[in-house]
Amino acid sequence: MSDENTLLALEGIKALFAIEEIKKLRARYFRCVDTKDWEGFAAVFAPDAVFDISDDVPGCILTGGDAIARAAGEPLTGCVSVHHGHGHEIDLTSETTATGICAMEDILRWSPDSERPNMTLHGYGHYVDSYEKIDGRWLIKTMKLKRLRVDIGTAG
Amino acid sequence: MSDENTLLALEGIKALFAIEEIKKLRARYFRCVDTKDWEGFAAVFAPDAVFDISDDVPGCILTGGDAIARAAGEPLTGCVSVHHGHGHEIDLTSETTATGICAMEDILRWSPDSERPNMTLHGYGHYVDSYEKIDGRWLIKTMKLKRLRVDIGTAG
Amino acid sequence: MSDENTLLALEGIKALFAIEEIKKLRARYFRCVDTKDWEGFAAVFAPDAVFDISDDVPGCILTGGDAIARAAGEPLTGCVSVHHGHGHEIDLTSETTATGICAMEDILRWSPDSERPNMTLHGYGHYVDSYEKIDGRWLIKTMKLKRLRVDIGTAG
Repeated sequence: MSDENTLLALEGIKALFAIEEIKKLRARYFRCVDTKDWEGFAAVFAPDAVFDISDDVPGCILTGGDAIARAAGEPLTGCVSVHHGHGHEIDLTSETTATGICAMEDILRWSPDSERPNMTLHGYGHYVDSYEKIDGRWLIKTMKLKRLRVDIGTAG
Repeated sequence: MSDENTLLALEGIKALFAIEEIKKLRARYFRCVDTKDWEGFAAVFAPDAVFDISDDVPGCILTGGDAIARAAGEPLTGCVSVHHGHGHEIDLTSETTATGICAMEDILRWSPDSERPNMTLHGYGHYVDSYEKIDGRWLIKTMKLKRLRVDIGTAG
Repeated sequence: MSDENTLLALEGIKALFAIEEIKKLRARYFRCVDTKDWEGFAAVFAPDAVFDISDDVPGCILTGGDAIARAAGEPLTGCVSVHHGHGHEIDLTSETTATGICAMEDILRWSPDSERPNMTLHGYGHYVDSYEKIDGRWLIKTMKLKRLRVDIGTAG
């Protein structure tokens, strides 16, 4: 009886840590984009990760952490970006897999001498994710950005 | 001794899951408003829930999940809305009751052909909530929106 | 065996509560600034807390909860402020110490009759923190605001 309860407790704790680790993973994703830490950014993804940004770029589905990092990093050259995410709804589907949704906002401003001179983008939406635990670390497996709204303009 | 510790552990885990479930409930509230999922939205409330929006609409206090959903949904016809919430301060007051505060921001823009042509609203504040666990599910029991600031304008 | 597991479980639960309490502490920091609750604000800091705001005010490093509260409060006279923070990456470094990073945004608007008439400030960045548990309560020990971007302007 007590043994069963103990195992139940350890199970519960493992689940709670998984949820916390996935939230940290997601926070690292956002922070690495904005600090242009592309190595750290690539490291949040599973090797075969899929990022569906077809709401932003029609038909665009990126595959693999390195490819996602390159594709995300290139257009952000000369851009100060702010990416925020919160409001996590995480569901553990097994000991090593999980799904999640979070609200997001991105605020981008390109410099006058960039390829998008003075362009601004202010967007809102949700990330619909799946995660996988590989070699003891939670990673982003799939990610779809569903937009509520995107405003594109030019800085004063 | 070990039995006591085990029960203590299970108690702690139950509390941590309650806090996580309340955060998910809150995230669902925000997501359902912005995706106009009014059925999902109504389902976050206890049957006798009370939503005090007198800071926005003087004297306005709504009662009941369905009434709240109708009252929230109607003015958002023809409106792209973004509601963000985070910074939870949740206190469990019993096994089935809790209170909470979270920071919030809402960004609304009505379409040219809506009842509020091109109107924009950008607000900030805190939700002061109470929650109740009914039939195994945490629900919003009371909710008061306390505003820090609201900017109303017209889109470009 | 079972005893060991029980202790392991209690250890895990203690860690999870520590993380949750640090998140609440951080939420209280943001809420107290915006509601101008300077007593509550001072109470989130360890007695010897250090706040490095040299990214905003070159060379400015504040020490001590009360001094930080005074230095934060004074320029916010006549200002409606909104401070948001989320995306926590908290690491426990011992039973009574922890480090953390969170994303932040601040939106300030001073009134026409304040010392900064109609001035607006809209900033983004990360807080890089350390925390300490003193007498059973988690407190902010050090805090450095690293800016991504700050926009200063004048309200319409």
